[in-house]
Amino acid sequence: MVAMGGGPEVPLKESGKKELILCTLPWPEEQVQKGIEGLKEEFKDVEVKYFHSVFDNGKSEPLQVPEEYLNRASYLSTLFWLPPSPKSIPKVNLIQFFSAGTNHVAQHPIYTDSKIPLCSANGVHGPQIAEWVIMMDLVHSHNLPKLLDLQKEKKWVQKAGMNVSDRVGKRVGILGYGSIGRQVARLAKALGQDVIAYTASPRETPESRRDTGYIVPGTGDPNGEFPSAWYSGTDKASIHEFLKQEIDLLVLAVPLTKSTTHLLSTTEFALLHKSNPRGTYIANIARGPVIDQPALVHALHNNLIRGAALDVTDPEPLPVDDPLWDAPNVLITPHVSGSSDVYADRAFEVLRENMRRFRGGRGLVNEVDRGRGY
Amino acid sequence: MVAMGGGPEVPLKESGKKELILCTLPWPEEQVQKGIEGLKEEFKDVEVKYFHSVFDNGKSEPLQVPEEYLNRASYLSTLFWLPPSPKSIPKVNLIQFFSAGTNHVAQHPIYTDSKIPLCSANGVHGPQIAEWVIMMDLVHSHNLPKLLDLQKEKKWVQKAGMNVSDRVGKRVGILGYGSIGRQVARLAKALGQDVIAYTASPRETPESRRDTGYIVPGTGDPNGEFPSAWYSGTDKASIHEFLKQEIDLLVLAVPLTKSTTHLLSTTEFALLHKSNPRGTYIANIARGPVIDQPALVHALHNNLIRGAALDVTDPEPLPVDDPLWDAPNVLITPHVSGSSDVYADRAFEVLRENMRRFRGGRGLVNEVDRGRGY
Repeated sequence: MVAMGGGPEVPLKESGKKELILCTLPWPEEQVQKGIEGLKEEFKDVEVKYFHSVFDNGKSEPLQVPEEYLNRASYLSTLFWLPPSPKSIPKVNLIQFFSAGTNHVAQHPIYTDSKIPLCSANGVHGPQIAEWVIMMDLVHSHNLPKLLDLQKEKKWVQKAGMNVSDRVGKRVGILGYGSIGRQVARLAKALGQDVIAYTASPRETPESRRDTGYIVPGTGDPNGEFPSAWYSGTDKASIHEFLKQEIDLLVLAVPLTKSTTHLLSTTEFALLHKSNPRGTYIANIARGPVIDQPALVHALHNNLIRGAALDVTDPEPLPVDDPLWDAPNVLITPHVSGSSDVYADRAFEVLRENMRRFRGGRGLVNEVDRGRGY
Repeated sequence: MVAMGGGPEVPLKESGKKELILCTLPWPEEQVQKGIEGLKEEFKDVEVKYFHSVFDNGKSEPLQVPEEYLNRASYLSTLFWLPPSPKSIPKVNLIQFFSAGTNHVAQHPIYTDSKIPLCSANGVHGPQIAEWVIMMDLVHSHNLPKLLDLQKEKKWVQKAGMNVSDRVGKRVGILGYGSIGRQVARLAKALGQDVIAYTASPRETPESRRDTGYIVPGTGDPNGEFPSAWYSGTDKASIHEFLKQEIDLLVLAVPLTKSTTHLLSTTEFALLHKSNPRGTYIANIARGPVIDQPALVHALHNNLIRGAALDVTDPEPLPVDDPLWDAPNVLITPHVSGSSDVYADRAFEVLRENMRRFRGGRGLVNEVDRGRGY
């Protein structure tokens, strides 16, 4: 740092007295200046050392971080990179991951053999993915793909946009009521829709319905107020009960587990069809294998559902000869709904919140339960 | 009506004792059964006579309504058709138009020479047009047209969906804060955006900020709570002050008048460009001439704005050789954003509300001020 007003520079050794925040992140430093400035502005007594951890083709390249910094660091913020063992970072109070989960480091000694608190950036995807979900449902119900094609042909065809079914009074069923599902719920309510929620474990008390994770301010459903009804369970019968509720938009926002693999298959499409004669629209922003894809293709061809918007497929990338590409009423995007130009800024906000909490002796936000795995 | 349980039919002359609601509407009767049933369910003492007033090529075909019904009718609901003079409908308490305005009958003797209350269906377009506005802003910011093209080519190209600029923290400026603008505001707030409003006359008191017209339940901004700031005026300087507020999404929802014709022209595009380096996105759901179209084409080609979504153009239909069709970052739909498959159902709701109010001796909703013209 350079002192203002022409005074002498702060001597280099002085910086040793400041707490060190070590960043090993997959962006060039200049792209995340806003986040770093935010840190320095709030915490005058910290120093930030930044290393660009290059991530390419699904793997992070080796990164050399000087031992001095590892020894001194009080906080580590990272996406993939970790030092070889917990001993390398003796002073670290917490590791702030910039990813929604920490499964990718679950075999690492820092995960398995240390008690350093690990925090995720869960919650930072909520706004952009909820935007994607609501956008896709509107795009389908307003017949926009056809209208865009007509624009390319410079044709003014009003009947292509007539008798749109607007969203007022429709029902949104959200399978997995986490940060994404909660922001979908906020938008759905503003559109005049009814919201019902499904969670693995029952949420019978007001306390249990709260979102205790990081929430982008002004978004989400912090107190669990939006759903008109809550459903729960991990067995088929419970899921089926939920799917029978005449759902207009079914949002898949569950983690991929054994019990959510092929959660929607032939039986479930038949059930949705029977329950809602208007046709259910399905938005999948979870993982491809949550849907039995051949069963989906069959359901689309046979009008068992109104359509599907998929940001995830099985497998990814979707092979060019997969019949899903041109099934009727399907919209596919290449696993991009979580992208945002302020992704890193938001993750830095989570780090700041955790530094505030750590210094205040309060419980951290998004702290990973190593036993449970998230 | 047929009595239940095998009893004798209600004698035809009996029906003379019921109040008559005369409907002359542009849909086949079976398409609006829900609206008619709703009327009969709420008002057991009414009889409904329905005439399909065929509307074709911008003109309504002649309609013969038996004099008996005209003489007896207590309420008339219509879109275009009117009897030749006020004398033909001596008992009509109010005429419920199924259109947002009544300009199309402003020269008719019933408008000019009678005091029969005329009510519009203003408010019934709010949800579907607000959906269109928010959908288009999302479609542009999520780069969806490109992603849909890639789907057609069966190509999985993640970079096309990367670094999306989500809507959190962005500012929406709404020019014309009526039923449509208010529902846009509700959605914008749910997306985490800031909202500022512009109205012709100042709205300085809480009372003046209320929406006194018909509101689709659960939508809109009944109390004018969403805007963080209100601007007003009909002169250029006032409009310019508003346009300087670093607006990310500018929604044009004003009526077309002398002062709103070419409201956005070369000066205004330059001003928007200077005020917001991220670029303003413009959504026009008002009327084409509110924008100086050649100036818009120039602004699009020169990146003075982020883009534009237009449901209205100047003229309509937009000629095939108009340079607007393939200007960069423009999305055009053929004046369809107000369409909804529940349009008539909602207009019947307005009629029901007005029947309730009339019978209760209360002021009507959406009553047209003949002097003011709306």
